Amino acid sequence: MRRLLPLALTVSALLAGTGLCPAVRAEDAPAKPLGMAELLAASKPDDWRTPDPSNTLYLDLPSGRVVIELAPDYAPAHVANIKTLAKAHYFDGLSVLRVQENYVVQWGDPNAEDEAKRKSLGDAESKLDAEFQRQRSAELPVVKLPDGDVYAEFAGVSKGFPVAGKSDKIWLAHCYGMVGAGRGDTADSGNGAELYVVIGHAPRHLDRNVTLVGRVLLGMEHLTTLQRGTGPLGFIEAPAPMTAIKSIRSAADTPKSERTAIEVLRTDTPLFEQLIEARRTRRESWFLEPTGRIELCNVPIPVRLKP
Amino acid sequence: MRRLLPLALTVSALLAGTGLCPAVRAEDAPAKPLGMAELLAASKPDDWRTPDPSNTLYLDLPSGRVVIELAPDYAPAHVANIKTLAKAHYFDGLSVLRVQENYVVQWGDPNAEDEAKRKSLGDAESKLDAEFQRQRSAELPVVKLPDGDVYAEFAGVSKGFPVAGKSDKIWLAHCYGMVGAGRGDTADSGNGAELYVVIGHAPRHLDRNVTLVGRVLLGMEHLTTLQRGTGPLGFIEAPAPMTAIKSIRSAADTPKSERTAIEVLRTDTPLFEQLIEARRTRRESWFLEPTGRIELCNVPIPVRLKP
Repeated sequence: MRRLLPLALTVSALLAGTGLCPAVRAEDAPAKPLGMAELLAASKPDDWRTPDPSNTLYLDLPSGRVVIELAPDYAPAHVANIKTLAKAHYFDGLSVLRVQENYVVQWGDPNAEDEAKRKSLGDAESKLDAEFQRQRSAELPVVKLPDGDVYAEFAGVSKGFPVAGKSDKIWLAHCYGMVGAGRGDTADSGNGAELYVVIGHAPRHLDRNVTLVGRVLLGMEHLTTLQRGTGPLGFIEAPAPMTAIKSIRSAADTPKSERTAIEVLRTDTPLFEQLIEARRTRRESWFLEPTGRIELCNVPIPVRLKP
Repeated sequence: MRRLLPLALTVSALLAGTGLCPAVRAEDAPAKPLGMAELLAASKPDDWRTPDPSNTLYLDLPSGRVVIELAPDYAPAHVANIKTLAKAHYFDGLSVLRVQENYVVQWGDPNAEDEAKRKSLGDAESKLDAEFQRQRSAELPVVKLPDGDVYAEFAGVSKGFPVAGKSDKIWLAHCYGMVGAGRGDTADSGNGAELYVVIGHAPRHLDRNVTLVGRVLLGMEHLTTLQRGTGPLGFIEAPAPMTAIKSIRSAADTPKSERTAIEVLRTDTPLFEQLIEARRTRRESWFLEPTGRIELCNVPIPVRLKP
């Protein structure tokens, strides 16, 4: 008589190959709208894409790997700088500096404030203009959500990322798992050398205040299970040890045998629109109230191990 | 040159006495609207309340204590049943059964599905009618938020809990840290013997699908840092060990010397309305875009150690 909560297909559930997806082929599909598990089981190879290895980062921690997809369409200068830093092994040996409950995990150089001790940025820029938002364009098509958004005029998904916008502007949204570049008090004080990941309820008030640079595709549990920092804002204080960053490198710079072969569901397909509707109006028998509404950060963008 | 994210005053930050709150008294307050830290520093004793010990649960785990405030106004039958179970030490020695990334931690009897082995519910009910929503009434006054809600006609805070509603109905909302009673496929299959806590982005599609019974006031980190389950829906699978529940008891049934003395900010005060506005339109110098909007699950309901 175990009490079950409803199906919540996550990245890890998909990867675990748990059999949550019954073997339903599209041609067998009943007339009734399908749930997410059935839609994914009925997906075709073309419904998935392989993230560009040069825009995929592996953050290797002692407990395992976090895979990040960078978003050069939204933050080209920050993404380029982060790639320069990763190529030069800048991040290797640095630390997780901050773990704040229901907020963020943040990593970088523990000596960043000490001119004598801090690690050189090498060829990377030390200051970058903010990339808080972009002009809307045909290159950034948006699958808009039908139920609005508290923080923006519209919200949706574009090229695999949650976005929001207002008139002719569009920006990445601070959903769970999004990766951003910390900054100081001025807009141009970030450079991508200190990065954070959202590990709690979407802090959407950070939208247009910090440059988002990507999204965690896999391995969130290596960040969310870290011991919380006891200092102000969740910074780690001695004697608590800081978690070391083994390395951050792009998939392109990683030997093929060490890569994590994953695929992300494409978001420019009819299947993805069906998926949104399946999550918006729940058909699984457990649901007594199908809701008929969906909020941006509850839209799944599934990831799977390459078949 | 450490990159800082903005101030995010959390329960733990408040409790840590980190000096985040400058010593500003109300009468010294400048004309400019205050930020959250200043508002809390200027609060008066009457702005805080001590949760009713008989409706406060201590979930004691090996790593420490989680403090839960029950919500009898919204789920009277479930709360009564949970209190009956706690008084009879039903939960003591049971286990965390499920830890699902960006979703829930859930605990109960690992043998619940085995009639021969499962623990007796004693005097508690084995089935309860759903308490998904209530009739609105003067006893449940709501501080409504000005920016709407994706999932409901209105959203706000009532007696210390996040709520949403539609015409004459009101319900507790599935924000981060909310506690609910798992159920099977039928509305009346829950009883409070298996409980879950939201540890990720608010799964608001669960609203009106499950009975919420309370909110975690303190100690979320003891739940969020648990190793994720590798089974379907994040259930823990052998050989991974299940985290044992040392005990769940009410504060009223706990010797005074072992109680955790905390206060919760009252939500029926002018100060609380100022606090919402302070979070809605950010005044801290770090914020370049003050936002001017706030979503239900980003409204803080602060908790502090009793001064």
